[in-house]
Amino acid sequence: MSEILSPEQLEAALRDIGARRYHNLHPFHRRLHGGQCARDEVRAWALNRYCYQAAIPIKDATVMTRMPDAGLRREWRRRIVDHDGNAPGEGGIARWLRLTEGLGFDTAYVESMRGILPATRFAVDAYVRFCADRSLLEAIASSLTELFSPQIIGERLSGMLAHYDFVSPETMAYFTMRPPQAAQDSAFALAYVLEHARTAEQQQACLDALTFKTNVLWVQLDALWHAYVDGHIPPGAWRPQTGEGLR
Amino acid sequence: MSEILSPEQLEAALRDIGARRYHNLHPFHRRLHGGQCARDEVRAWALNRYCYQAAIPIKDATVMTRMPDAGLRREWRRRIVDHDGNAPGEGGIARWLRLTEGLGFDTAYVESMRGILPATRFAVDAYVRFCADRSLLEAIASSLTELFSPQIIGERLSGMLAHYDFVSPETMAYFTMRPPQAAQDSAFALAYVLEHARTAEQQQACLDALTFKTNVLWVQLDALWHAYVDGHIPPGAWRPQTGEGLR
Repeated sequence: MSEILSPEQLEAALRDIGARRYHNLHPFHRRLHGGQCARDEVRAWALNRYCYQAAIPIKDATVMTRMPDAGLRREWRRRIVDHDGNAPGEGGIARWLRLTEGLGFDTAYVESMRGILPATRFAVDAYVRFCADRSLLEAIASSLTELFSPQIIGERLSGMLAHYDFVSPETMAYFTMRPPQAAQDSAFALAYVLEHARTAEQQQACLDALTFKTNVLWVQLDALWHAYVDGHIPPGAWRPQTGEGLR
Repeated sequence: MSEILSPEQLEAALRDIGARRYHNLHPFHRRLHGGQCARDEVRAWALNRYCYQAAIPIKDATVMTRMPDAGLRREWRRRIVDHDGNAPGEGGIARWLRLTEGLGFDTAYVESMRGILPATRFAVDAYVRFCADRSLLEAIASSLTELFSPQIIGERLSGMLAHYDFVSPETMAYFTMRPPQAAQDSAFALAYVLEHARTAEQQQACLDALTFKTNVLWVQLDALWHAYVDGHIPPGAWRPQTGEGLR
């Protein structure tokens, strides 16, 4: 790309990446919300996704280390509050643990992250590193997958509640709380990117950052499918047959 | 683990990790050297493995940044010479490019790393980061997969030459050169680890480092299988049908 895009064109290009590469297009997502997942597949998804959830406040603190402006940090700090809460048992991570608990997992096992697929860990670590190593603009742009998350969360919530008797509105509370937070966060991040990506190079870097982030999400579902749908569980990862990690 | 192992016990424990988790046990390896891979599967393997090969001297330079001792650095420097050579066209990376060229790839395409599976890149980056972030002892221990590589390389070389008419001794030169280098490198690294891992914690850290490294290798073959054997190619990765990257 060599021409500078208007803000409208840049937003359209960012949304186009979502339309082509967001993980709502992945077969595992369709299988999950369509009710075709076995309970152990849902468990494996929730267990591995915990690794991602747990890294998000660390990622956001990493982004904040790049922000020289208190106002910007205050805005970004809300994300950490959303995930960590204000007291034990509050916040998005605690709500995720209610899901894994509802699915039968021992919480200490989930928190230990033993049994996580190595591919999950590598992808999550790559995301945190990206936010440490790249420009602040790219770090913020990489968060823009949240533009697309309210829809996927809506599909997941209704689909999973309709199809699986082993989840409930209580254990799915994460997904009830998340869409308004994601909408607020992504509106801020989008406005920031549209304002600060002024050169063609900066704009391309933002598009690449969002593409990178879609890869981070996609890789996790590829690994779940390969391990738990196709049955090629790699050495050391959670094995449903053993009852490992379950209460 | 709480007891301190003797050097012999530590070596046995390290070799046991190889016996249980090295990627010669992965179905893709068996498929590759057993002659069951389609040409495009071999191409995808060579293309993605280039990403790993190209990162090795960067990994080794990263390890050298941790070494205060010139003698140690001189020993480790040999690895970089082996991969980068002394002139254009020499060294392990150049020999790997002879393989991808022999398989029909445009070298500029391979070097660009467009088309690499995101899972490959995340795993390779995780390895380089590991060697930057962990102790020197752990970084050296993570190289010990080379203890097991002469055997896998032998299987690959003979199996691939016997089964595929699209590889030749010339394009497979990487594998002829590599075993004596790997044997020398891993003998040094093993002696270093056995000498310096003196506490139970250090020994466990070395075992964990080697386990981590086996994950780095295993994840790459899992991703190849999912994408190119099972046909779930993720967005942006090399698509054989398009002729992309081929001469």
